Amino acid sequence: MSKGLTQRTDNFSAWYNELVKKADLAENSAVRGCMVIKPYGFSIWEKMQKKLDEMFKETGHQNAYFPLFIPKSYLSKEADHVEGFAKECAVVTHYRLKSDEESGGVVVDPEAKLDEELIIRPTSETVIWNTYKNWIQSYRDLPLLVNQWANVVRWEMRTRLFLRTSEFLWQEGHTAHETKNEAEEETLKILDIYTKFLEETMAVPVLRGIKSENEKFAGAVDTYCVEALMQDGKALQAGTSHFLGQNFARAFDVKFATKEGKNEYVWGTSWGVSTRLVGALIMSHSDDKGLVLPPNLAPIQVILIPIFNSDDEYKTTLSNLKKIDKNFRENSIRSEIDSRENHKPGWKFSEYEMKGVPVRIVVGPKDLENRTVEVARRDELKKYVIKESEVVSHIKDLLPEIQNNLFEKGKKYKNENTRIANSYEEFKNIFKKDNGLVYAHWDGSKETEEKIKNETKATIRCIPIEGDKIKGKCIVTGKDSERMVVFGKAY
Amino acid sequence: MSKGLTQRTDNFSAWYNELVKKADLAENSAVRGCMVIKPYGFSIWEKMQKKLDEMFKETGHQNAYFPLFIPKSYLSKEADHVEGFAKECAVVTHYRLKSDEESGGVVVDPEAKLDEELIIRPTSETVIWNTYKNWIQSYRDLPLLVNQWANVVRWEMRTRLFLRTSEFLWQEGHTAHETKNEAEEETLKILDIYTKFLEETMAVPVLRGIKSENEKFAGAVDTYCVEALMQDGKALQAGTSHFLGQNFARAFDVKFATKEGKNEYVWGTSWGVSTRLVGALIMSHSDDKGLVLPPNLAPIQVILIPIFNSDDEYKTTLSNLKKIDKNFRENSIRSEIDSRENHKPGWKFSEYEMKGVPVRIVVGPKDLENRTVEVARRDELKKYVIKESEVVSHIKDLLPEIQNNLFEKGKKYKNENTRIANSYEEFKNIFKKDNGLVYAHWDGSKETEEKIKNETKATIRCIPIEGDKIKGKCIVTGKDSERMVVFGKAY
Repeated sequence: MSKGLTQRTDNFSAWYNELVKKADLAENSAVRGCMVIKPYGFSIWEKMQKKLDEMFKETGHQNAYFPLFIPKSYLSKEADHVEGFAKECAVVTHYRLKSDEESGGVVVDPEAKLDEELIIRPTSETVIWNTYKNWIQSYRDLPLLVNQWANVVRWEMRTRLFLRTSEFLWQEGHTAHETKNEAEEETLKILDIYTKFLEETMAVPVLRGIKSENEKFAGAVDTYCVEALMQDGKALQAGTSHFLGQNFARAFDVKFATKEGKNEYVWGTSWGVSTRLVGALIMSHSDDKGLVLPPNLAPIQVILIPIFNSDDEYKTTLSNLKKIDKNFRENSIRSEIDSRENHKPGWKFSEYEMKGVPVRIVVGPKDLENRTVEVARRDELKKYVIKESEVVSHIKDLLPEIQNNLFEKGKKYKNENTRIANSYEEFKNIFKKDNGLVYAHWDGSKETEEKIKNETKATIRCIPIEGDKIKGKCIVTGKDSERMVVFGKAY
Repeated sequence: MSKGLTQRTDNFSAWYNELVKKADLAENSAVRGCMVIKPYGFSIWEKMQKKLDEMFKETGHQNAYFPLFIPKSYLSKEADHVEGFAKECAVVTHYRLKSDEESGGVVVDPEAKLDEELIIRPTSETVIWNTYKNWIQSYRDLPLLVNQWANVVRWEMRTRLFLRTSEFLWQEGHTAHETKNEAEEETLKILDIYTKFLEETMAVPVLRGIKSENEKFAGAVDTYCVEALMQDGKALQAGTSHFLGQNFARAFDVKFATKEGKNEYVWGTSWGVSTRLVGALIMSHSDDKGLVLPPNLAPIQVILIPIFNSDDEYKTTLSNLKKIDKNFRENSIRSEIDSRENHKPGWKFSEYEMKGVPVRIVVGPKDLENRTVEVARRDELKKYVIKESEVVSHIKDLLPEIQNNLFEKGKKYKNENTRIANSYEEFKNIFKKDNGLVYAHWDGSKETEEKIKNETKATIRCIPIEGDKIKGKCIVTGKDSERMVVFGKAY
């Protein structure tokens, strides 16, 4: 392990970039804005995928796969949608290269120009609703509950690993329903899945709400979201679930015969989370020593390290660890032994701290004598000794305890950094010093929202679902407000 | 279910296209050459992925993710590679659209032209070896055993669902090693995994061998392959494993410090199988009634159908089936009940035959009386009655029996359609009537290979690994031949 990280309080952004690289999660590729997700980082994403996929399937969703390419004309069919995505589209114009005698390399073959340009999907509503047109004739074909795991491209000028990359991996659900009510229920059911996943699997507490007109998905009637508060006081949109109304059904003429024999437009939803969640995970729990992973997502939950001064001690400590490792695996604990002889224990300790392994177990000659092991918790950076005979039952209890501890720490942090601003002065002061989530009354107008954004960089993260609706006056204009909304500086 | 399929003997190609659609596996999308994989088809691919992924991980491979885009200049770095792929590349030239006031739609923004065009990956050797350059410094960094599940694009003029599409899904392994020997071992280890997967999971017997110069991967030293014989007597390349030598290490300057302190180029392999396997699966087992799935890959292994003439009978047969279904699930048998009242049993029988469900179980009023169930096997299209009390143990034995039966049928077919041609006359006659796999002596020259291809459409599928090497004379030129090679008409 090379020298440590920049401290979070010194430069949060530098800390994040260094951590992503030093923990072997991802790196920038030679292609502007595209990342390489390294095996360790990818294995975290795989664990996220597996759990989410189970949750989607348990609620009746099926996976499918739709084309990477979207004909340019499709994008234009839904007016808000094209407005929202046109400026960040990667466009395929040709389908062949040819040798270039001058340079000795290859050039685009001008004769292989496409009649209609193809867009790399920034999201798949258009190509999917164009397909649904053929899949849906009657109410018997509904609901249609489909998800796809895919890569998408949104050309970004300023990128950051996991948080904002031109290409990213995600899942996108696209459902079709008979009634408005059923589609709205689906939108909220997915919001519940995202909430549960973030809180129980990622140990990240969330704020749930609905987006303002300014912030909603291009083409949606309503966008629901889960927002998480990062350690630097900025908010991160972790997942969105859109009620599409009949917008895409109209754009692609998707109608169905109702039970009563009428012909009506279908109601739709779409929803997604992406590799951005890995960024959210990192910024929620990690510390100045590196990554901190919740046990539910840790590729390695327990790392076993031998301490030895001689070949003999190496053999005996290692054979002891192998026994423990076997025992762990039989109890579905993901453990690994680091038996490398060319690295000192201290080097290994730092490495697994950097990589966020929740628990470290060390066995040295003294432990062999006393029949003990040393346990170190990554979340609290504490260590203690226990009897070897208790190691499995101890770790079986410890992993959920760590998982819970991370969530409770997150909740505490979120609570401490959620404030109410009763005046615009107060509001501006908060966003000068502390950031965090700020409840404030707002008059509901785009103009006020813009003004606040321009003056403070804070935007409306959401109109919260939970909590009482209490009327008041807008902190900027003094006009009537139905309820407080939540502001934050966004990632 | 609409009317039946074209018979295989009448028009195999029409049979295949109809089956893919009627069994709800996939369809053509509005984008030329790209397919939509429907939920039922995708669930078969998911089962394939899961099993292969386990096999890769058991042998020490890890997943990662590399960018979709490849800078044009990268492709040119390995001469054979660019030669092989340049003519089928989708090229991104711009990164933004803008509103077009004339048409009211959007057009490509000419100001958003990329300095260097990006190719949609047709395969990822170039972008991956460019990354490996930074990952590999010393022998301690080796071997590097990485796989990725991804979409790739090779622009095809004539496409067929699953078999040849412009975009397809696949896995591509890319490994780096210290020695030639180790890389060759890896190449063969993967060939073994593919063989085992095809034979044990897909129930498709394969021929294993090495490609001729003409047919090998662009950039490889040696390409190993598994070839499967389809029911129309044509051969399908089901998977390839490439020994890359030091070709890509040289092209991207990937060197490592050896244990002895020298600086040497790394040895590489790459290997892949794709959604084409779904096509191979269909064409291996299916019949004129539709898809036939091996139980190991069937999304539904047993379909349970009630027969009833009254509401009362509906209730009692259904409650009986629910008991059986529960029992199956507890025994890890993937079962489902089709309790729909708006379809007749006969309609359902055809539907699940079309969808290839391995076993159908029917319970009617008489079965309730006699405490029996009717079992129907999809592979043999036979039905019989068993005691209800034996149903779980019976099905537990039956599923592997069906799996094995499909494999044995495939082996028999392959054996019956593998022939030796001792003269070019004989060879030509076989490819006029029967097709299949044909062993023949060949002088090893490209010219002879081309001549045979032009005159018979048969190409060298592989130089087999298994079997004795017996010398002879080329059937075309009479020149010396080291051993027979295997010809076939290829998909």
